[in-house]
Amino acid sequence: MALYSQQLQQHLQAVEDSLPTYLPQGEGIAAIMHYACEGGGKRIRPVLVLEYCRLCGGDPSVALPFAAAIECVHSYSLVHDDLPCMDNSPLRRGKPSAHAAFGETMALLAGDALLNRAFEIMLGADTVHPSAALRAAFELADKAGVNGMIGGQVLDLDSEGKCIDEPTLKRLQEGKTAALLQAACRMGAILGGGTEEQITCAGQYGYYIGLAFQVVDDILDVTATAEELGKPVGSDDVNEKNTYVSLLGLEQAKALAASYTTQAIEALSAFADHEDLRALAEALLTRTH
Amino acid sequence: MALYSQQLQQHLQAVEDSLPTYLPQGEGIAAIMHYACEGGGKRIRPVLVLEYCRLCGGDPSVALPFAAAIECVHSYSLVHDDLPCMDNSPLRRGKPSAHAAFGETMALLAGDALLNRAFEIMLGADTVHPSAALRAAFELADKAGVNGMIGGQVLDLDSEGKCIDEPTLKRLQEGKTAALLQAACRMGAILGGGTEEQITCAGQYGYYIGLAFQVVDDILDVTATAEELGKPVGSDDVNEKNTYVSLLGLEQAKALAASYTTQAIEALSAFADHEDLRALAEALLTRTH
Repeated sequence: MALYSQQLQQHLQAVEDSLPTYLPQGEGIAAIMHYACEGGGKRIRPVLVLEYCRLCGGDPSVALPFAAAIECVHSYSLVHDDLPCMDNSPLRRGKPSAHAAFGETMALLAGDALLNRAFEIMLGADTVHPSAALRAAFELADKAGVNGMIGGQVLDLDSEGKCIDEPTLKRLQEGKTAALLQAACRMGAILGGGTEEQITCAGQYGYYIGLAFQVVDDILDVTATAEELGKPVGSDDVNEKNTYVSLLGLEQAKALAASYTTQAIEALSAFADHEDLRALAEALLTRTH
Repeated sequence: MALYSQQLQQHLQAVEDSLPTYLPQGEGIAAIMHYACEGGGKRIRPVLVLEYCRLCGGDPSVALPFAAAIECVHSYSLVHDDLPCMDNSPLRRGKPSAHAAFGETMALLAGDALLNRAFEIMLGADTVHPSAALRAAFELADKAGVNGMIGGQVLDLDSEGKCIDEPTLKRLQEGKTAALLQAACRMGAILGGGTEEQITCAGQYGYYIGLAFQVVDDILDVTATAEELGKPVGSDDVNEKNTYVSLLGLEQAKALAASYTTQAIEALSAFADHEDLRALAEALLTRTH
């Protein structure tokens, strides 16, 4: 099943076309920022920003700066995660990671610059009312910080080499994966002029597909072939990582992923034209890589 | 000569009292964020935010979140600058640097968290009109990024071990030192409801005291005793750094610092009650450490 409907594919194209224009141009650190953002990811966060803007009656193009911003934040987190003092990953999406390609010092600075750039883009945008811009930008700051993504990262480091329980693993993944997806959907709804109920429901969809995504990742790590996955199968196991499969077993993990997906889909009832996002949630559940 | 008048001392106290309340509470990364912000610096950036708010007719207390935010950005830059892949400094203001005290991984994340926190604080502030908040926060993002502080950092790395000319050194210091001071003054003027002319003049004061500050630093590095300076005298020379003294000679460097200070003071004419900032500019010029 294709991940994106025609509508979401249009958003993806808009993101691919506009993202480079929101980054600084030139050699040096600017080039590293482009490199880090050009990894060929799914762009799921910016696509969700645009789609929720549209679902709430807004013109998706007004949300483009905010879509670019959340991709900058995601990209910075990958650059810093790959650094030698973090995961020490030489590869990212089959290419040399930023520090492998450009050295540790410049990768550190390019990561800083991408996080900073996200706010330059959003706060300099004149596409929406200042109060909507302020609120949408706050969503991203809030979910990217110690109460969200960075908090999840810290929990992950704390739990290395330890056995943790499922509530702790959930809290970790709420931060590492769900927070930014939640922010994406809420930002889109805010920018599109959604009601408070719609903004809340948007956040719930992002939150639950985020949790489901991570459970599916853990499942694929033990069930997929290396070829499908593009990384060594069972790599989590080798590193003694806590995963949903190691904590719950394969069958219960599958049931949990399905349950999270159901909850994501339930949160779509606040939106009339939500077929594409229902299909996206299902495609993320049944993906094989 | 004391750096701060009674008025500026009051701002300093307000910053010291409120800054910890804008940081997350608790153990782990929160504690490192506090540690990084509690280094006993001069707090010149947040003090300038408050004073320019006051000079433009605003209540300085509405600018407190923005004052805290710029100190977070300054602190993050020091944490990341000290990392092994950057300056590899074990000490900061006479205490172990963040990575020396808490390890490289947590220092990296705490730096990220401080930069991110700056925006959480500003965008979550409800002390000023959204359009003023947005503009003030943009000032900080703009001057902290590739066009400002990070850009200066990159130029600094590029020029290591090379002989650069004075215009390049100036450009480097415009980014590394002047940009954030410029942002501080402009933010305060924006938050205080200053006119466009006042905002421009505020930025000029910050810009010129920033440039003067760095020239004086270079001068002190060759003229001060180690005791006054708290670091080995001539340390720039040992590292073959480009300094204003190495490029211009001591006398011309002194003349340049005086000239920048004069230009800073000239930019005060847009403000009626500017005696404290004139005294500050002079105290920064004649400081001995």
